[in-house]
Amino acid sequence: MAKTSKHPSSKQRRPKAATPKGFRDYFGADVTERSEMLAKIGAVYHRYGFDALESAAVETVEALGKFLPDVDRPNEGVFAWEDEAEGWLALRYDLTAPLARVYAEHRNDLPTPYRRYAMGPVWRNEKPGPGRFRQFYQCDADTVGAASVAADAEICAMLCDCLEEVGIARGDYVVRVNNRKVLNGVLEVTGVADAGQRDAILRNIDKFDKVGAAGVAELLGKGRLDASGAYIDGVGLSDGEAAPVLAFLTSRGADTAATLANLRAAVGGSDVGAEGVDELQQIADLLTAQGYGPDRIVIDPSVVRGLGYYTGPVFEAELTFEIIDDKGRKRQFGSVAGGGRYDDLVKRFTGQAVPATGVSIGVDRLLAALRETGRIGAQTQGPVIVTVMDRDRMADYQAMVGELRSAGIRAEVYLGNPRNFGNQLKYADKRGSPVAIIQGADEADKGVVQIKDLILGAQMAQTATLEEWTDRPSQIEVPRDRLVAEVRSMLERS
Amino acid sequence: MAKTSKHPSSKQRRPKAATPKGFRDYFGADVTERSEMLAKIGAVYHRYGFDALESAAVETVEALGKFLPDVDRPNEGVFAWEDEAEGWLALRYDLTAPLARVYAEHRNDLPTPYRRYAMGPVWRNEKPGPGRFRQFYQCDADTVGAASVAADAEICAMLCDCLEEVGIARGDYVVRVNNRKVLNGVLEVTGVADAGQRDAILRNIDKFDKVGAAGVAELLGKGRLDASGAYIDGVGLSDGEAAPVLAFLTSRGADTAATLANLRAAVGGSDVGAEGVDELQQIADLLTAQGYGPDRIVIDPSVVRGLGYYTGPVFEAELTFEIIDDKGRKRQFGSVAGGGRYDDLVKRFTGQAVPATGVSIGVDRLLAALRETGRIGAQTQGPVIVTVMDRDRMADYQAMVGELRSAGIRAEVYLGNPRNFGNQLKYADKRGSPVAIIQGADEADKGVVQIKDLILGAQMAQTATLEEWTDRPSQIEVPRDRLVAEVRSMLERS
Repeated sequence: MAKTSKHPSSKQRRPKAATPKGFRDYFGADVTERSEMLAKIGAVYHRYGFDALESAAVETVEALGKFLPDVDRPNEGVFAWEDEAEGWLALRYDLTAPLARVYAEHRNDLPTPYRRYAMGPVWRNEKPGPGRFRQFYQCDADTVGAASVAADAEICAMLCDCLEEVGIARGDYVVRVNNRKVLNGVLEVTGVADAGQRDAILRNIDKFDKVGAAGVAELLGKGRLDASGAYIDGVGLSDGEAAPVLAFLTSRGADTAATLANLRAAVGGSDVGAEGVDELQQIADLLTAQGYGPDRIVIDPSVVRGLGYYTGPVFEAELTFEIIDDKGRKRQFGSVAGGGRYDDLVKRFTGQAVPATGVSIGVDRLLAALRETGRIGAQTQGPVIVTVMDRDRMADYQAMVGELRSAGIRAEVYLGNPRNFGNQLKYADKRGSPVAIIQGADEADKGVVQIKDLILGAQMAQTATLEEWTDRPSQIEVPRDRLVAEVRSMLERS
Repeated sequence: MAKTSKHPSSKQRRPKAATPKGFRDYFGADVTERSEMLAKIGAVYHRYGFDALESAAVETVEALGKFLPDVDRPNEGVFAWEDEAEGWLALRYDLTAPLARVYAEHRNDLPTPYRRYAMGPVWRNEKPGPGRFRQFYQCDADTVGAASVAADAEICAMLCDCLEEVGIARGDYVVRVNNRKVLNGVLEVTGVADAGQRDAILRNIDKFDKVGAAGVAELLGKGRLDASGAYIDGVGLSDGEAAPVLAFLTSRGADTAATLANLRAAVGGSDVGAEGVDELQQIADLLTAQGYGPDRIVIDPSVVRGLGYYTGPVFEAELTFEIIDDKGRKRQFGSVAGGGRYDDLVKRFTGQAVPATGVSIGVDRLLAALRETGRIGAQTQGPVIVTVMDRDRMADYQAMVGELRSAGIRAEVYLGNPRNFGNQLKYADKRGSPVAIIQGADEADKGVVQIKDLILGAQMAQTATLEEWTDRPSQIEVPRDRLVAEVRSMLERS
């Protein structure tokens, strides 16, 4: 037959059954829990007036451009190949670059502002490592065509709602807001005009999270001896030039008013700096009016991640509860989402700057957080297993599962080789089945079924006394027509 | 700044804002309706005891192999590229090849039988055309490791449940079942031993749908003049050799018993043929016992699609209601799902044959059918739009949407440039908004808001008499604290 000739014959080398490195399979609850979380987030986005968008995984390399927001990983690439007709194609590396293409392509048909959300896998052609995958999910919401900081404020509020909707309690997270324009004002005040030095300042404030203010001061000045003993050359700023940058990074005050006052001082007479502080003030006012106070959203100039990429307000959601890390140390869970304003993204297609702001939720990080807090990941229940005692009575067993399913109960007949009954119970155990149904010839003649409570059985095998075994048998015999009712009450008990 | 130097400057050619050919964007309801349909199908699969599996989009070319089930398109390829470390990688072209790899890789940890469902995009590197895309969704369920035809029967029953769950009425679909073993028996009876001739027979029975029994008879014999006037060479079988094949194709009788009797005659003394007929008998018996009678599932030897690929039972779900096609002609909607038994898929990895059977639902076809029948695709409702009459009172407007959202009502503040009020109403129209909220300085002073019923307004603009305009104004003024209640009752009316 035509097809079989293409199959590798037994003489050929067998293919290796493995994913390429950096890719993985998700089984069972890992799939459904993610879907459920994304559905909840999608519902919040939708309630805020955002519309769904799903673009293809494949774009032209030209359309994707090079807009990776993560300045820590500037060399990472995309998976690309050359298509006969279409030239170089690639897998999308985020959901923002395709949004820019979609908006540029369809801008005459889309409403302005265009509010869209998108969720799906993205691909990065980078060296895989532990916990570092080459395919992962993103879940974004962006508003394109709205210059008002009300759009930024709204996204911060929506981010809070998303976190609470999926199960992060209020008080366990904070959304921190900063503004690139304030930093631009600070750079102006430093008096540093050289582009290379400005780049170097940006790169070094990104290290604030790791090395603190004193460390950044050294890096901006003469240099710094790092933990490994290596000496890192400094940017060579004078103390006076570095001072506004350090004032900016450390300007968080006791409350919003104090922080904003410190920032005003840090930006001195810079117009763009003043504009940035005004924007932060407006964002804080708008959010307070909507009930999103500093218990949930704070102005925090120490947020530096993404400041090199975004052009206006920048925000980051952090989970504040503590977890035990791989090395047994307590630490805060950390960031699960980030975003900001980026006003140049569509311009490369159309020549016109289009204001845009948005957020990206780290799906895997947030799922991990929900597992940490026990909000998801409890033992998921397998199906009720109808065992096969008599191969010729398969139709009877199928009728049983049919009744159970009609009653909304997850159920299946054992479809492996039924000869060894022990294998059937092992299968039920492996599936996490709560209940097994048994009907041999004797039971069939009597018009009854045996119902085995596998959860109770497992518990009792661990702990029960003889009395308990007698009082609460884990297996009961019931009339055939009571099957569904008895299974249901057993499932409700368990 | 480091990043901006990588952005194309205005002197560079602008990238084209377009998807590569064969790829497309899905907006709004096209995304959410598909998600909702897949969630319903997933719930049915889950109730039948199937577990979710999500493998990566990328596999090694070696692992994917060449197992395309669709014999009509043998030359289609995959999107592939060479990875420095991993060798040739490719996007999956279906969900079955990855299942084989997953089962082979994880077989010691997975239960046997392994029942899994999977849904997601697949990619085909074929020439795009009208309605022919290079990325599309599949939605599969398979049982690996179950040799019993009870597994096949169950999948047919599950397919019925899926169709009814998403909204295809009983009577509007039929699942047709055939068996490759019966065809093998028929081939034995023909006496044709030559592999090339057997291949040719398989290819030509695949044309039964198009050319009918008489056409296949010509193609198996001397040849046939097709509609375009071209002469198609025949396989060169004698009438005696062709007769069993034609008997097989036309053996559908008035009921299941008659069909099975005809098939028994067609396979004559062939053992494998008799085994095939026995399997069909068992499938029919099992399904009847579960209440899936011939009003939903029929044994139908004219199902030939996939017979060249599968090794045992083959099934296909067809929608039987009529639609008007592109050319204005009535025709049956046709196939929306297909599957069957394929017992060799895992063998290429492990050397051991593992029985497997499964179904794949054509997601786009089924969605199209639901739209045809009006089950989905009604006008979707946009958000309530709070207009901006006074830019300085943005916080008040945000508070309004905050209240509406807390009440579960989809709502947003207009975030474009508010200067032109007409643009705000045009935006509301483009979004399909049911209601707009207006509060200028006067209303704010009086503590009221204007609520504009945009749906009623649009209807009345079309049809209303002067009296109706007066009796049922499409815009009402209510106290500010009645905002949510009044909007809700307006939405309930509309």
